Amino acid sequence: MGMKLKEAKIRVRYQETDKMGVVYYSNYFIWFEVGRTEYFRGLGMPYIEFEKNDLYLPAVEAFCQFRAPARYDDLLTVVTRVSSFQEVRITFEYEVIRDQDGEVLAQGHTEHAFVNGQGRPVVLKKQNPFLWRRLMEAMEESED
Amino acid sequence: MGMKLKEAKIRVRYQETDKMGVVYYSNYFIWFEVGRTEYFRGLGMPYIEFEKNDLYLPAVEAFCQFRAPARYDDLLTVVTRVSSFQEVRITFEYEVIRDQDGEVLAQGHTEHAFVNGQGRPVVLKKQNPFLWRRLMEAMEESED
Amino acid sequence: MGMKLKEAKIRVRYQETDKMGVVYYSNYFIWFEVGRTEYFRGLGMPYIEFEKNDLYLPAVEAFCQFRAPARYDDLLTVVTRVSSFQEVRITFEYEVIRDQDGEVLAQGHTEHAFVNGQGRPVVLKKQNPFLWRRLMEAMEESED
Amino acid sequence: MGMKLKEAKIRVRYQETDKMGVVYYSNYFIWFEVGRTEYFRGLGMPYIEFEKNDLYLPAVEAFCQFRAPARYDDLLTVVTRVSSFQEVRITFEYEVIRDQDGEVLAQGHTEHAFVNGQGRPVVLKKQNPFLWRRLMEAMEESED
Repeated sequence: MGMKLKEAKIRVRYQETDKMGVVYYSNYFIWFEVGRTEYFRGLGMPYIEFEKNDLYLPAVEAFCQFRAPARYDDLLTVVTRVSSFQEVRITFEYEVIRDQDGEVLAQGHTEHAFVNGQGRPVVLKKQNPFLWRRLMEAMEESED
Repeated sequence: MGMKLKEAKIRVRYQETDKMGVVYYSNYFIWFEVGRTEYFRGLGMPYIEFEKNDLYLPAVEAFCQFRAPARYDDLLTVVTRVSSFQEVRITFEYEVIRDQDGEVLAQGHTEHAFVNGQGRPVVLKKQNPFLWRRLMEAMEESED
Repeated sequence: MGMKLKEAKIRVRYQETDKMGVVYYSNYFIWFEVGRTEYFRGLGMPYIEFEKNDLYLPAVEAFCQFRAPARYDDLLTVVTRVSSFQEVRITFEYEVIRDQDGEVLAQGHTEHAFVNGQGRPVVLKKQNPFLWRRLMEAMEESED
Repeated sequence: MGMKLKEAKIRVRYQETDKMGVVYYSNYFIWFEVGRTEYFRGLGMPYIEFEKNDLYLPAVEAFCQFRAPARYDDLLTVVTRVSSFQEVRITFEYEVIRDQDGEVLAQGHTEHAFVNGQGRPVVLKKQNPFLWRRLMEAMEESED
């Protein structure tokens, strides 16, 4: 019932390339967001529902290592995992893989705080016990 | 006391280029937004103040003709004018000029509705008489 | 054997929204590009192959009317058609439709020149007779 | 004659915000690029000149900590320093500061490889001795 990892598909857009002929580096962080969105959907808790319940997850840290360039029209897979989950913070790990040959183009992580609409920290276990339990299960599953 | 036009400076970012080696076309509409922002600031009414007073100007139409490509690190001027102004709509015209040689790279317009935070149309003259008067003056000035 | 229109799916990204809570207007032109890319793939001629053969299609004009806002996580369909096709120019028409209720959120067009890597106009019929024939067939099909 | 640090000014664009009402996180990496561009210009060696001489600096790593959100129309300063410089790699450090009150909104770094147009590593000291010397001087200056 848990979820170890979630895969999301990306088709590289022309807009995401730059004059070097490859994808501009900041776009990988946008693809990480696509990975997070699909991860939460896979848990049965779309992120859009969080915000409707006054729960937001702004990034407090972001990191990426770029190993090989993605190019226009490449079909990619973003693999997303939760690597750490505490009362007021959650960390996701990502791999961006080129479908054609399975090469890992980039690896990274993002850390997020749980806050309300006024930007104040919230304790997830109290504010949204259902999501808290689903994330705990996902974490346990991934430790098996 | 009016304002015929407003100039805003843009330095082309690497991120704005694409694999063709020139600026990707949708970025011109972002630069038009920079032009609008500086236009309203020039009127003494920064756009950020509108939204604090529950007045929003979503785009209802956008158009651009691309005459010559902008390139990385180019210094550009966005010239912004109000070309039409009615009770519930406003239209801006833009020229994107390359500073180095004065060439007009792009020309376009955007049309915006006046709405409140719920997306309902508002009559500017009632909702914000000060801004309405300033825009009327700007229009009259530009007809001289 | 031709192709009247092509549909491409878009899931709205958080990055594409702005502080008004809806999608920022320039992103529709990026989605139009996704529509074009899938249109050419549907013809059996991926756009990436054009550039490998020294054929580029820079935008010379872009237009969009925004009827209703797209929002984060919306599932959208971009419907793309060729509306005009001449020796050195091609025009695409687009509709952006919200899958949930079929509402047309935006309509627009883009016009493109056929140029080579040096930016010089090329006559498509000579430079790429196969693509020229496929596009002619697509046009005829859409007139039925 | 060296250069310890370089400041670049950023005015936050509406397009850079998201539905949370603040700047979307990947934009900080674009501002870091603006910082690098102005850093090289300050050394008397605009980055655009590198590429004309077949020298490219793709990012191999990027990191950012987000301390407080930037908002639409904020005036920001990106402070850029070279923190490490070797034969085939260079690392930049950045601070994004809100001008109004001097608060540090974000801190990060990017690491870049020196490569040629084919993506092969180049030894900067051989490929561009002038830039290599200027960067060495900048590093020494910053150690004073």
